[in-house]
Amino acid sequence: MQPQLALVPGEPAGIGPELCIRLIQQPRTDCRLLAFADPDTLRAAAAALALPLQLLPEHAQARVPGDLRLRAMPNATPSRFGTADPRNAAAVIDALLAGGQACLDGELDGIVTGPVHKAIINQGGIAYSGTTELLAGQAGVKVVMMLANDIVRVALATTHLPLRDVADAITSEGLEHVLRTLHAALLREFGIAQPRIAVLGLNPHAGEDGHLGREELDLVIPLLERLRAEGMALVGPLPADTAFLPAKLATFDSVLAMYHDQGLPVLKYSGFEQAVNLTLGLPYPRVAVDHGTALELAGRGSADPSSLRAATRLCAQLARQRRLSA
Amino acid sequence: MQPQLALVPGEPAGIGPELCIRLIQQPRTDCRLLAFADPDTLRAAAAALALPLQLLPEHAQARVPGDLRLRAMPNATPSRFGTADPRNAAAVIDALLAGGQACLDGELDGIVTGPVHKAIINQGGIAYSGTTELLAGQAGVKVVMMLANDIVRVALATTHLPLRDVADAITSEGLEHVLRTLHAALLREFGIAQPRIAVLGLNPHAGEDGHLGREELDLVIPLLERLRAEGMALVGPLPADTAFLPAKLATFDSVLAMYHDQGLPVLKYSGFEQAVNLTLGLPYPRVAVDHGTALELAGRGSADPSSLRAATRLCAQLARQRRLSA
Repeated sequence: MQPQLALVPGEPAGIGPELCIRLIQQPRTDCRLLAFADPDTLRAAAAALALPLQLLPEHAQARVPGDLRLRAMPNATPSRFGTADPRNAAAVIDALLAGGQACLDGELDGIVTGPVHKAIINQGGIAYSGTTELLAGQAGVKVVMMLANDIVRVALATTHLPLRDVADAITSEGLEHVLRTLHAALLREFGIAQPRIAVLGLNPHAGEDGHLGREELDLVIPLLERLRAEGMALVGPLPADTAFLPAKLATFDSVLAMYHDQGLPVLKYSGFEQAVNLTLGLPYPRVAVDHGTALELAGRGSADPSSLRAATRLCAQLARQRRLSA
Repeated sequence: MQPQLALVPGEPAGIGPELCIRLIQQPRTDCRLLAFADPDTLRAAAAALALPLQLLPEHAQARVPGDLRLRAMPNATPSRFGTADPRNAAAVIDALLAGGQACLDGELDGIVTGPVHKAIINQGGIAYSGTTELLAGQAGVKVVMMLANDIVRVALATTHLPLRDVADAITSEGLEHVLRTLHAALLREFGIAQPRIAVLGLNPHAGEDGHLGREELDLVIPLLERLRAEGMALVGPLPADTAFLPAKLATFDSVLAMYHDQGLPVLKYSGFEQAVNLTLGLPYPRVAVDHGTALELAGRGSADPSSLRAATRLCAQLARQRRLSA
């Protein structure tokens, strides 16, 4: 049976709703989608794009372009494209949590999420640092962030930290958890039998034998040796600059970067449009778009749906593989 | 008149000598080369590659493939490809310093350098952290390191530091010197009338208005505003990941990264073979290959001369432009 995925558009005033409308113009065979969204917002997006939309009850079947099954998550106030309203913050968060809960309950098999406007949610009185953290908190697990396109899958050992805090945030326990989570996801969700993971050094030249920092010698190398003894195929610690040489990159199933700006520039350079943001370590697959709400483009029909398409396709694959691996 | 450039092969046991032999098989019209090298090493490289080599006195003229004018810098002991000998460390360093001195004296117009083996030089009893630092010390100036290929020119605000020391190493005075040096080089050596420089933030998302670090607010932004008031076209501070999106990158003449692993992965990913390493801020242009000594390849003729070719071509361009700008 096809996996069933929650589709949550995110900020109603941004490009999320219209990307969802574009997404459902092609029939799919890889999954069934259930939107968690405000119906009026979806209708407004369809009208703005002059594209068909038929909102269906949950237990119906999508058959023609524009068919979309919906669990209605009404906004508090009508939304206007381009102008995010903090009064709708609760509806945005509720839709994400409802989608996540449906996955935790085994009702759905995964979740695909659109862009959320962090500042607006916080203005709406809800402490929110990101959908990744929101869903991790709901599930009560520690997660790993991965950004992926057709060229490379980059996982991050630390994410949104000031640079001066990065070195102290890398601990042996933390890094072990990240590596185990990444390894398990590659194995069980990506279906890679013996995942080959490149681990970047924290320091330039991976510390150059201690001349440029000792974290590799004191922490990273001993951990990698211990995990290799369990059979994990870990390469490194590698100098970050040369690890991304295309010929080398092609030999890795994933690259684990120690921090945000070490891992993401090549990811974005090598294919931003198709890039997606995954959360590893949840009890279900979650894939998000790798772009923002783009309020200035909303409602114009010019936003590029490539990332949402790629996210949906990948989430369906991961959900299927997870079932096979179970 | 053609600029005259010093050509210094670097480690005699590495691939530097054979790259020089390959380089001189094509006639050039953009510069005249004067090698600072051990003659026997060059002859051995030519023999290994079965390529012509005629070593000429300094005041001769190179006319046919294999002609190379030479200032002899004899090794202390015969070198063997693949086995670097610390007894030749002084000869390696002397050749670099002699080339640098000839530029300082106005005898030559620039210097092109091959790869040097840092550990071997230090084993030879000479404290050496890199040719960049060696030539800067000789000239008595502070310099800026730039890596460049056909896609992007990345300058670095800090270079070979442990990651935990980077944040404190970024000072307003230091960054100002780097920006002025970079701006002057783009103007005078690259001949770019109004150079547009993208300055990356130190922190992820360029600090996100202080949520992810305060260095942008406290230090980078005020400095950029001050320099913009002088007429410098500075963009940023930009988030490092999205600054490298190809469409954005195409609008910058250079990207200033705050540290090594923030700036170099995209550079190497986007074109390693053609990449070169420049030293900005010297009284003469210096361009080096962006690869190591590759001892394991030496003497086999399989090493790729693209980087040395690109370095020589660029050094000749910079020397000509410098003369025009003078």
